[in-house]
Amino acid sequence: MNVAIMGYGVVGSGVAEVLKKNHDSILKKSLQPSLDLKYILDIRDFPGDPNESLMIRDFNKILEDDSVRVVVETMGGLHPAFDFVSACLAAGKSVVSSNKELVAAKGDVLLQIAEEHNVNFLFEASVGGGIPILRPLSQCLAANEIYELYGILNGTTNFILTKMIDDGLDFDTVLRMAQANGYAEKDPTADVEGYDACRKICILASLIYGKHVYPEAVYTEGITGIDLADVEYAKSWGGVIKLIAMAKEVSENRISAMVCPSLVPACSQLANVNDVFNAILVRGDATGDVVFYGRGAGKLPTASAIVADIIDCCQHTRQKKSFGWKSSAENIVVDHLDQNTSLYIRASAEHTADALSAVRAAFGDVQVLSRKDAPADEIAFVTPVDTERALRTKLRTLHCIKPLSVLHIADC
Amino acid sequence: MNVAIMGYGVVGSGVAEVLKKNHDSILKKSLQPSLDLKYILDIRDFPGDPNESLMIRDFNKILEDDSVRVVVETMGGLHPAFDFVSACLAAGKSVVSSNKELVAAKGDVLLQIAEEHNVNFLFEASVGGGIPILRPLSQCLAANEIYELYGILNGTTNFILTKMIDDGLDFDTVLRMAQANGYAEKDPTADVEGYDACRKICILASLIYGKHVYPEAVYTEGITGIDLADVEYAKSWGGVIKLIAMAKEVSENRISAMVCPSLVPACSQLANVNDVFNAILVRGDATGDVVFYGRGAGKLPTASAIVADIIDCCQHTRQKKSFGWKSSAENIVVDHLDQNTSLYIRASAEHTADALSAVRAAFGDVQVLSRKDAPADEIAFVTPVDTERALRTKLRTLHCIKPLSVLHIADC
Repeated sequence: MNVAIMGYGVVGSGVAEVLKKNHDSILKKSLQPSLDLKYILDIRDFPGDPNESLMIRDFNKILEDDSVRVVVETMGGLHPAFDFVSACLAAGKSVVSSNKELVAAKGDVLLQIAEEHNVNFLFEASVGGGIPILRPLSQCLAANEIYELYGILNGTTNFILTKMIDDGLDFDTVLRMAQANGYAEKDPTADVEGYDACRKICILASLIYGKHVYPEAVYTEGITGIDLADVEYAKSWGGVIKLIAMAKEVSENRISAMVCPSLVPACSQLANVNDVFNAILVRGDATGDVVFYGRGAGKLPTASAIVADIIDCCQHTRQKKSFGWKSSAENIVVDHLDQNTSLYIRASAEHTADALSAVRAAFGDVQVLSRKDAPADEIAFVTPVDTERALRTKLRTLHCIKPLSVLHIADC
Repeated sequence: MNVAIMGYGVVGSGVAEVLKKNHDSILKKSLQPSLDLKYILDIRDFPGDPNESLMIRDFNKILEDDSVRVVVETMGGLHPAFDFVSACLAAGKSVVSSNKELVAAKGDVLLQIAEEHNVNFLFEASVGGGIPILRPLSQCLAANEIYELYGILNGTTNFILTKMIDDGLDFDTVLRMAQANGYAEKDPTADVEGYDACRKICILASLIYGKHVYPEAVYTEGITGIDLADVEYAKSWGGVIKLIAMAKEVSENRISAMVCPSLVPACSQLANVNDVFNAILVRGDATGDVVFYGRGAGKLPTASAIVADIIDCCQHTRQKKSFGWKSSAENIVVDHLDQNTSLYIRASAEHTADALSAVRAAFGDVQVLSRKDAPADEIAFVTPVDTERALRTKLRTLHCIKPLSVLHIADC
């Protein structure tokens, strides 16, 4: 059986490397007589590359070669990835993808095409890099009703927040540091604004709840507004700030899903997930809390997830894997403002004592926080639980304070 | 398709409960037209039990009923479990087991019978309770060469150590507390002496390294000798004491494997695994460190792992799952004394200053530890890395000190 790779960037070249390095054990596990990399599709030249002889520029070579049974898509982006993947599936080839943008936008459509042609479309590497999460979710936890899931799904923002917490450096300084050592891209928007984490929570939620969850429907907030003052208040509250992606069943066929920087209590397993590591906490009715932890990105961790999917395709040539993920005309995500939460609020006020009295009158029993060397006009507190809409409405009526930062308290 | 359960204890009744409670979603995932519990085998009576009508005492009813395609073995113990499971597999029925004693002793034989009859023998619940670990190990991490694995695999001992660390209570007091609230059995030997963790590391090592690893070959030490003094010294060293089960490839076809109380640095993901929770850290060449965390025991978590295996059997009626675990005439486990390690040593000495000079002369650059209110005749230190044999030989030559406690330093 032959394999082709489309897109020879960091991840694609990692796949070629792992296939070569661990060839014997991979072949044994694949249950196939042979398993060879035949083509690598890329528009760029790679002179001197050990795989130079496999490089092609014409997608049709892959499409028309019946010996290629599994195609790896590591191109990224929606186009032409969507068209290439669709064509491969329709031609009876299984496809393995690490492309979270593609899966979050078109997962339902591609799974439908795969089903019609009795082939596999697998995408373990699209969430959590080297952490096995999609397969455990759909298989190992199959016996559970999963009622909520919290994840640290983006390594770049977790690295930035860890440095802010541990070294007391501000956001801009750490972002430049992350860019310098390759943990953040030149244009860091997709990471720091939460879009990357949003795509991943959509993939997880679609798998768990069986209907496509679109990124546009998920409230998404990044970490660019996080100030060192918030980091210190989080510490005095007894926790840390993490960019948390969550999904939760709120009623039959309705879920809450969002991505936002949140205060996480120190006793949570997610509080100790540092640097570029990712972790996903899954809460099931039978299994209780289960946490998966590992490297959420990187050449070899991601490649290892892709190769595991390739092996799975090889083992399931007669019988395809089944996901419950279907297209959905309706949006199953409810408005996050209607959900219950506590909020952390930092604000400025001319007369802080009066302001705190007004805060207590409005919110009830708030937990007032303190930090060393706080400006005289600063207050910070955590509200009791209420709907986010009610809490924000109350906050708007408090004219004596000016909110500087509002964060969720994560129940994980 | 029908299912039978053999053994209606805590776990077996949990399986019946989960199958009933989540019947619709389980049926959907099973890809079968029907999935019903037909028999429950037990020698006891359960008057008034909701499943009373399914109870049988004659194993042959299950064996001879062709509609029963999947049999769950939750009896525990080697006999008659081994004979019943062998007979079911030989009759072309898939078997799902949570019985770690059976799998650790006879996994190779049962997998061989399953292979000969083209059925599945699955045992996810035998390690880590509700944590998906065996399937990720054999599938998701299939692309990796796994070079080491460290686990907290026993909830009872982890509960006891957590209470000793957090509340400063001694071993005997916490053991009684654990027995009172059901976390420890009346006869706690299998847990506190490490035998339970030993069976689990044997199952994990057999799966990873492809050859049967027998419990008798694995050095196993329990936690009965752990003193509060050691807990305090571990804190001053910067870590905690955990009962660590480990397996590590040392050369082709040779592994090191053992179970012993060890000092774990606070920065390790395993250091924050508390109470009855379990966690397994897997170190692969491509994926780096991956950690799986969750409830290692309990009725519903374990039942959920079993039901996931039942679903897997239903999905793989035509094609059985493949494990690389084969019988092995030779013992692949090397002598742990030949492996490199650091040791923590607590000892008494008449003249502590002289004793520390002698310790330094023997071991070289040791790290001396201190604790509040230590007796005047007590010393504690961590040795440099050497083979355990060399370190223990040096210790025996030091006649000026009397060792009270010797623990490994875990590299996890």
